Amino acid sequence: MSAKRCVGAQSICFAEDIYVLGRAAVVGKKEGNGPLRSFFDEIDETDLFGGENWNDAESRMMQKATATAIRKAGFTPKQIRLLFAGDLLGQLLASSFGAGEMPIPFLGVYGACSTMGESLLLASMAVGGGFADCAAAVTSSHFASAEKEFRFPLGYGNQRPLAATWTVTGSGALVVGDKTALERSMAQTEESVKKERGDVQVVIAGGTIGRVTDYGVKDKANMGACMAPAAAAVVEAHLQDFQRKPADYDKIITGDLGKVGAEIFADLLGQKGYRVEPVQEDCGLLIYDNELQDTHSGGSGCGCSAVTLAGYLLDKLYEGEWNRILFVPTGALLSPVSANEGSTIPGIAHAVVLERKKGGN
Amino acid sequence: MSAKRCVGAQSICFAEDIYVLGRAAVVGKKEGNGPLRSFFDEIDETDLFGGENWNDAESRMMQKATATAIRKAGFTPKQIRLLFAGDLLGQLLASSFGAGEMPIPFLGVYGACSTMGESLLLASMAVGGGFADCAAAVTSSHFASAEKEFRFPLGYGNQRPLAATWTVTGSGALVVGDKTALERSMAQTEESVKKERGDVQVVIAGGTIGRVTDYGVKDKANMGACMAPAAAAVVEAHLQDFQRKPADYDKIITGDLGKVGAEIFADLLGQKGYRVEPVQEDCGLLIYDNELQDTHSGGSGCGCSAVTLAGYLLDKLYEGEWNRILFVPTGALLSPVSANEGSTIPGIAHAVVLERKKGGN
Repeated sequence: MSAKRCVGAQSICFAEDIYVLGRAAVVGKKEGNGPLRSFFDEIDETDLFGGENWNDAESRMMQKATATAIRKAGFTPKQIRLLFAGDLLGQLLASSFGAGEMPIPFLGVYGACSTMGESLLLASMAVGGGFADCAAAVTSSHFASAEKEFRFPLGYGNQRPLAATWTVTGSGALVVGDKTALERSMAQTEESVKKERGDVQVVIAGGTIGRVTDYGVKDKANMGACMAPAAAAVVEAHLQDFQRKPADYDKIITGDLGKVGAEIFADLLGQKGYRVEPVQEDCGLLIYDNELQDTHSGGSGCGCSAVTLAGYLLDKLYEGEWNRILFVPTGALLSPVSANEGSTIPGIAHAVVLERKKGGN
Repeated sequence: MSAKRCVGAQSICFAEDIYVLGRAAVVGKKEGNGPLRSFFDEIDETDLFGGENWNDAESRMMQKATATAIRKAGFTPKQIRLLFAGDLLGQLLASSFGAGEMPIPFLGVYGACSTMGESLLLASMAVGGGFADCAAAVTSSHFASAEKEFRFPLGYGNQRPLAATWTVTGSGALVVGDKTALERSMAQTEESVKKERGDVQVVIAGGTIGRVTDYGVKDKANMGACMAPAAAAVVEAHLQDFQRKPADYDKIITGDLGKVGAEIFADLLGQKGYRVEPVQEDCGLLIYDNELQDTHSGGSGCGCSAVTLAGYLLDKLYEGEWNRILFVPTGALLSPVSANEGSTIPGIAHAVVLERKKGGN
């Protein structure tokens, strides 16, 4: 029998460590002006990344993030066995023409803004299950392509309600691998990466896969409220499955609930007897200075949690400020068609445990 | 160390058998009038499946297929540990509002018409890696929702070139599981399923994950030509990785290349020294009577290969007409946006090995 890696009702763990081998965050101008600017690998002041239009820009941004993460892992694209990628655009346009153009076996995934959680868990499962020695997970979003897809062309200059979030222009990529891949990575990677790590490794220690959760919210300008129930449900399931409490994590970091959603999330968990506020963060609230940058409820998009993880969150783990975090990207499952037909907006969220390990190599 | 389940450059195998536990194919009127009619679980003459519009119809059709496959496996939805689902619509509208509404941890996937290959491989990897005792894979497409999304509203009555395929209205679902799940399934499932199986089981024996392949074709009315290079590449990689030849399979069945694409596929493999014609089939050519049903180049859509697999192909394996097949769903990675911008249409395909086993229980 293969080792069982199921925990409780909907969680998984890994028999051996799954290591973060490479990471990259590529963002646009507004994100580069925000509080996390020093954690990003590349900031493009034009938001175009050399592309001809916003879709092309997003594809190129994603390709840059993937290529940089692979390079920082000390690998070439051909040495990556599987690539999990997703974005917000219909038919995964950015991924198919971006990361998909690399010579790597490709699996497209979609979970709206929760996609980084999904792709990272699937990449880790592929490695943990023995199907790949290393795999990459990448997602992206672009403010301009998302506005065109979901709302109004930018030229219309439409007004945004205060509950609305601002789609992050950014792509985050991670390469994960097993112990043999780690050894190759440490031998091959550039000196700056070796120096940053020292004898510290960050591992993907487990996760919880969420269910679609629909509280009947229909307001696409308040996606935090749509996603908060899914985030609370997956965190509750996670804590039950692993028999932990919020304080067992240095931080529990939701994807892009924003101001409104983060309060609902904490309330819902409070009703279940979990006090999450002392460790609660939200990528959507971390990425912009909401006062100075006029982003209303915060950042959102597949790229929001991805670049915050690949940049800021992993930095804090490597530096030792945190030892264990729960990363909970959240997605609002709406499409332009469903929204215009007046459907509800179901939410989904997945939880990923990341841990700092000394002497990991 | 976990058992390595990598084969060659881009293939995987399983250390223990992954069993097909349940399967269902739900289709619309045109498919129900075609040559495979006797292999489907449900045919809806209205194509609406009780829904209010075409998107709603597709969601309901997918939910029916998933529920039926789970019931035939002898399980309740809550006993399924993971659900991999995908469809053609932007933001996976049909899956999010269809299969996603079931109380099962949900992972959305997108590979255009190759999605059944992707979801089935990922479900099998989740089981084979020990992360789930059983998992479901489901995909759907609907002629009317696809025409609306990709081409013209039906009321326009537009003309179709001969190279065009006809999007299948159908959803196919499979439940796969490990030995303990098989034992529970055989104890709990209905008599008709037990009788059909006898002491025969069908197992997912391995697979090959494809790369995005772009030959520069831009004609969205000739998707067979867009996908054929990807299909030929993944079959070539598969045969190399497993050191097999086409004759080692009773059938090699592509997804929906149609007449035009199937010829290109055979030609491309012929150039590499593989003679695939004697065992070649295509779901898009099997599902309709192209003479009588005026479907031009054949059927297509995520549902095409899914219902052909869940119905016809698995029947032939259980009956013993075939012992080993290679199922190769093929996808054209276009979106309405990319097509209107004049982009090329890259293709992708994944290969799944299905084998008949006597005395499998």
